[in-house]
Amino acid sequence: MSITIAFDADDTLWHNETLFAVTSEQIGTLLAPYADAENLHRRLIDTERRNLKLFGYGVKGFTLSMIESAIEVSEGRVSAREIQEILEAGKKLLAHPIELLPQVRESLESLSKHHNLMMITKGDLFHQESRIAMSGLGELFSAVEIVSEKNPETYRKILHRYHIDAEDFVMVGNSVKSDILPVLEVGGRTIHIPYEITWELEVAELGSPDPARCRRCHSISQVAEEVARFYPSV
Amino acid sequence: MSITIAFDADDTLWHNETLFAVTSEQIGTLLAPYADAENLHRRLIDTERRNLKLFGYGVKGFTLSMIESAIEVSEGRVSAREIQEILEAGKKLLAHPIELLPQVRESLESLSKHHNLMMITKGDLFHQESRIAMSGLGELFSAVEIVSEKNPETYRKILHRYHIDAEDFVMVGNSVKSDILPVLEVGGRTIHIPYEITWELEVAELGSPDPARCRRCHSISQVAEEVARFYPSV
Repeated sequence: MSITIAFDADDTLWHNETLFAVTSEQIGTLLAPYADAENLHRRLIDTERRNLKLFGYGVKGFTLSMIESAIEVSEGRVSAREIQEILEAGKKLLAHPIELLPQVRESLESLSKHHNLMMITKGDLFHQESRIAMSGLGELFSAVEIVSEKNPETYRKILHRYHIDAEDFVMVGNSVKSDILPVLEVGGRTIHIPYEITWELEVAELGSPDPARCRRCHSISQVAEEVARFYPSV
Repeated sequence: MSITIAFDADDTLWHNETLFAVTSEQIGTLLAPYADAENLHRRLIDTERRNLKLFGYGVKGFTLSMIESAIEVSEGRVSAREIQEILEAGKKLLAHPIELLPQVRESLESLSKHHNLMMITKGDLFHQESRIAMSGLGELFSAVEIVSEKNPETYRKILHRYHIDAEDFVMVGNSVKSDILPVLEVGGRTIHIPYEITWELEVAELGSPDPARCRRCHSISQVAEEVARFYPSV
């Protein structure tokens, strides 16, 4: 029996949300003359949520939402130079080097000797492709899928496309909403590795899932042992 | 023998570049106090070209480049309200309904009875998926590939992925740079259907390609007859 282990990328293989948080904070400082930090943060999250169905995920949509929020909270008083700083912050995010999480390369190399590895990430196609190239991890995966949304239908399509039985599929990721719940729904197994922070629009309750189908661990280095528990006879 | 006919989407199946042109013109009018139209247009194209390797293709990158150009040409004098108008123009582009080119649905329906049809489009994953859904054409294609760049390597990968022999592959599109030259390079056949305008960053010279491998026509309704010329024995 061949097991496929699929990995989320952002905040599972490399740092992502912390970079967004640092950028949001810098922009908060920039816009401090117009709004207090808490108000600004709420407005930004509201704007992002409202724009998500038009922009989808990713840095470019985030930057546009930041600019929109800056104009809103300042009631049109934000200067062109300040908007330019927001633009530059967005570009810095796009160009930011990849910082792998601890033990990622070693763990993937070791897992790839015994299992079929995939990457399933959501977000901006162009930016995710550049990041995968920058990460140097690409050749460890037999397939890379960049998707616009991670819902049960997305996972069903991928399993179908690669002729994978849900029983033989394990998804590893940090997001309960995107990596865990939809995979459990289609009959796969999951390993949840929480990241230090979660984007507010990704927060979801896991409840008490069946430990035979969903495990939690704190490092990618523990994935091999969790997979061995899922499939004791492999 | 089964022939695969792959279609580009923007400016081949539905209007696209004309919408960008109208938006650019509106923004030109908005920024007329700061720069003459010709200067503004040049600056925008330069900004887009410079940002392409960071933003990739699509409306969100276009909007960010528009904002950047507005700040540049106005030397920081553009107001927050004017930037907001640029943002709104970008959002309007994203939400714009799909307008199919003439005879697209009938031609695809007829072709799909005898051939395997694919869609191969570049650009923003999220936006292209929404447009494909809006177009109502999705079910006519056996596969849809949204790619970040259309170069020979992209086409090679797609042919490999779907086990298609380049000899049995015809690409139909409006862009010499993206739909014709790279496909000829990998050994496929092509049908060029020029669109009324071409984005400056897509302009390329076709030269005098072998008419046995590359045809030009003026409407998608002529594709069936060109394909029959390519494969007289089918």
